[in-house]
Amino acid sequence: MRAVVLLSGGLDSYTAAAIAQSEGFELNALTILYGQRHAREVEAARLVARALGTARHLELSFDLRAIGGSSLTSDTAVPRGRDLESSEIPSTYVPARNTIFLSLALAWAEVLQAFDVFIGVNALDYSGYPDCRPEFIRAFEALAALATRAGVEGTPFRVHAPLMHLTKADIIRRGVALGLDYGLTHSCYDPGPDGAACGSCDSCVLRARGFAEVGLRDPLGHTTG
Amino acid sequence: MRAVVLLSGGLDSYTAAAIAQSEGFELNALTILYGQRHAREVEAARLVARALGTARHLELSFDLRAIGGSSLTSDTAVPRGRDLESSEIPSTYVPARNTIFLSLALAWAEVLQAFDVFIGVNALDYSGYPDCRPEFIRAFEALAALATRAGVEGTPFRVHAPLMHLTKADIIRRGVALGLDYGLTHSCYDPGPDGAACGSCDSCVLRARGFAEVGLRDPLGHTTG
Repeated sequence: MRAVVLLSGGLDSYTAAAIAQSEGFELNALTILYGQRHAREVEAARLVARALGTARHLELSFDLRAIGGSSLTSDTAVPRGRDLESSEIPSTYVPARNTIFLSLALAWAEVLQAFDVFIGVNALDYSGYPDCRPEFIRAFEALAALATRAGVEGTPFRVHAPLMHLTKADIIRRGVALGLDYGLTHSCYDPGPDGAACGSCDSCVLRARGFAEVGLRDPLGHTTG
Repeated sequence: MRAVVLLSGGLDSYTAAAIAQSEGFELNALTILYGQRHAREVEAARLVARALGTARHLELSFDLRAIGGSSLTSDTAVPRGRDLESSEIPSTYVPARNTIFLSLALAWAEVLQAFDVFIGVNALDYSGYPDCRPEFIRAFEALAALATRAGVEGTPFRVHAPLMHLTKADIIRRGVALGLDYGLTHSCYDPGPDGAACGSCDSCVLRARGFAEVGLRDPLGHTTG
């Protein structure tokens, strides 16, 4: 069985891809360079794809900076030390990003005759992004059934979000059990010029909390600021 | 009121944009260069945007040739003289194209605080593409409500497809009544090296039939092959 997996180079998508593989799927990894300030994660995606032994690894580029509207795709500062319990959607939200990513994954899946797409979103330890919720995933599946030749011909696309109901600590436990090397990944939204993680953006803080809860040292050696 | 309009440079999207304008919307035109063989239509989109006096015209590029799966984005021949009454989806179908286009339009709309998106699809004189049907548009609206910050905050996005139930002849009548110059547009899927329309692809045949039914000469002077 073939699957298309969205692979950003972060800890979550690496784990989601490994779960797909453990379920017997052939991995076709799709990495999207969208003008994000942490473009360094694309290098991590290459390392991760190699470690997983993906059948294919496709990189697509387009410039969401032309659209902007997010601190990840503009020169607005990335928030640090934010209250993660806040219900406010932070400036790191990229308008329609997961909709765009799943659309591109759907296109490739249809060409590959892969009817399973994996995405590493989760609804617990995340930043309150609307497009990380189960109802979003279900709505995309409903759309995919109508949008495609395969859907019309009766083959449904399934969008798998195996991390949806896991905490960051659960995700790390799962990945460690699968033998993953999280030293290959990159999580920081706003790395320094040398690629070092900032330690205080949402992504760094969630990662550090996850490793702390599991009682493991992060192989990237991050400390939170 | 601001709207984002998907503007390909073809006759349909020009008419859909003009209808939006006639309804009082400020036009923010989005043209997507996706590696289509008829990239010439992007030049037509610029002419059309200028003629309409759009507030903004954004061009986004990405390479769907890396994904392929369509005669429009690969070196497979474009079908000519096809039976348009056939229920078969032709090779010019581009996997998930309208899903990708609407996703990008949604991202820009959210940034512009425009809650109306116009797309020139129609369900009558088209080529049997699944992503040109009313149920597809409704499913995208349902997705958009869940996918975005604005949706979560209670502002629905509306996707307008004002041509949905019009024949090609109806569309041309509507455009002529709005004073449109269809000589600015480009419709052929597979133009010659000089940019001339082939006259025998689905898009040329549907266009020629439309003008013939209305009893007007196509300003591009096409003849069907």
